[in-house]
Amino acid sequence: MTRKEIIDHIRESRSFLCVGLDTDLKKIPEHLLSEEDPMFAFNKAIVDATAPYCVAYKPNIAFYESLGVDGWLALQKTVDYIRQNHPRHFIIADAKRGDIGNTSKMYATTFFEKMDFDSVTVAPYMGSDSVKPFLDHSGRWVILLALTSNPGSHDFQFMEDADGTPLWRRVIETSQHWADEEQMMYVVGATQGRMFEQIRRAAPRSFLLVPGVGAQGGSLEEVCRYGFNDDCGLLVNSSRGIIYASNGSDFAEAAAAAAKELAGKMADILDEHNF
Amino acid sequence: MTRKEIIDHIRESRSFLCVGLDTDLKKIPEHLLSEEDPMFAFNKAIVDATAPYCVAYKPNIAFYESLGVDGWLALQKTVDYIRQNHPRHFIIADAKRGDIGNTSKMYATTFFEKMDFDSVTVAPYMGSDSVKPFLDHSGRWVILLALTSNPGSHDFQFMEDADGTPLWRRVIETSQHWADEEQMMYVVGATQGRMFEQIRRAAPRSFLLVPGVGAQGGSLEEVCRYGFNDDCGLLVNSSRGIIYASNGSDFAEAAAAAAKELAGKMADILDEHNF
Repeated sequence: MTRKEIIDHIRESRSFLCVGLDTDLKKIPEHLLSEEDPMFAFNKAIVDATAPYCVAYKPNIAFYESLGVDGWLALQKTVDYIRQNHPRHFIIADAKRGDIGNTSKMYATTFFEKMDFDSVTVAPYMGSDSVKPFLDHSGRWVILLALTSNPGSHDFQFMEDADGTPLWRRVIETSQHWADEEQMMYVVGATQGRMFEQIRRAAPRSFLLVPGVGAQGGSLEEVCRYGFNDDCGLLVNSSRGIIYASNGSDFAEAAAAAAKELAGKMADILDEHNF
Repeated sequence: MTRKEIIDHIRESRSFLCVGLDTDLKKIPEHLLSEEDPMFAFNKAIVDATAPYCVAYKPNIAFYESLGVDGWLALQKTVDYIRQNHPRHFIIADAKRGDIGNTSKMYATTFFEKMDFDSVTVAPYMGSDSVKPFLDHSGRWVILLALTSNPGSHDFQFMEDADGTPLWRRVIETSQHWADEEQMMYVVGATQGRMFEQIRRAAPRSFLLVPGVGAQGGSLEEVCRYGFNDDCGLLVNSSRGIIYASNGSDFAEAAAAAAKELAGKMADILDEHNF
């Protein structure tokens, strides 16, 4: 999917919401557990209910891997279902992979060829040759971890060199030599608040994938005040707040309502920016 | 598995070799492709042939994931097979995972409970809460990336703070507050040569998992000159040099011979150190 297609979809749907499919059998409505594939049954209902209000879906691979073969099958079916029924939606494998070159190449094959994801989140610690194999797939994206939403982000990501450049900025600056904003995005946690001002200076045109709104406490308004750029430039993710809005038989309607509410706020923000 | 059990196994078997099971259907002997599960058939033969010469096995998860469900099944069978038939061997999931707390918890469940690995390699970029859920499983290990073997290791891992402390050392020093040498090891690439001297100063008692001997060009002698400690403290991995020593019908014998040769050098090194 191209950058222009993502931007057009945001403009037309009046939303830059990404729905995180962190599907956990312990949290989905009990009545689904008797389905042949409960994970997929849940995802299918959530996707159909929320598609009008979002532009992207992000399954976190950990949740699927934890069920082994069953999870893997549910993941594959989910990606295929989104691709066939909601072809304009951008699909993110939240996998946080990254290994030596020949191994990253295997991961890229898995997520882009075997499974048809549009993008994969990648951890930067191992540097260029751990990221570049993902970039060899044209039309597919790397979403590199820059400044994450969790408390542990303070352990290493803010470490500064002698010139005062923090690691997260070094990651953004260095990685812009590997790919431009047509193929690389960055993960920046919503909990980082005003840091978005500095992020935007380092990556003015790049899309940012922003987890941490909702359950993790980040503020949509603050993210947009500092992170919005001429192309919107944001995919704001919500997982638990949407997909677990209810665990009764109305779970899909409740998810739609939660997504619609967030999308409504996003539409106002897009209007304010005359986007 | 305890640290003492690993050390005793090294002492008795006269080897600190780890065999990397980077099993790739494009590289295994053709005659295995007609087996019901070619990956497992290959791994089983390799494991039985090399077990006398090594103390650990390290499947790289990327190779299994790239085959989807089939790969996942082959991985599960491989771990079960090693556990049942070679119970003293330490089993490493080379997965390089790491995510926010509740997600890392899912990965830990997958590798430690669902699949019965002894250890998982973890990427440190996201900090403490991305690592700690793995440490909640007693008797299981985290092997944290410190200084990797690939060219991209120079992009960020050597970044120094104002006091001249590089990121890799910050990772080692900080993580020692999360767990001691009974539950945490570090990945240090064999290609880092003399850096082992500095690594040992930062982590004198920890085991180091050392990839990069063989195909990647690292030297066993150099690694041991600087990295060997009172408990040996090294698990040196070789993947391609052993498992693809031949792609004919003699592949298992050739793998055994390659493992035996490397283990012979290790036995000499253990003797030199009166271990």
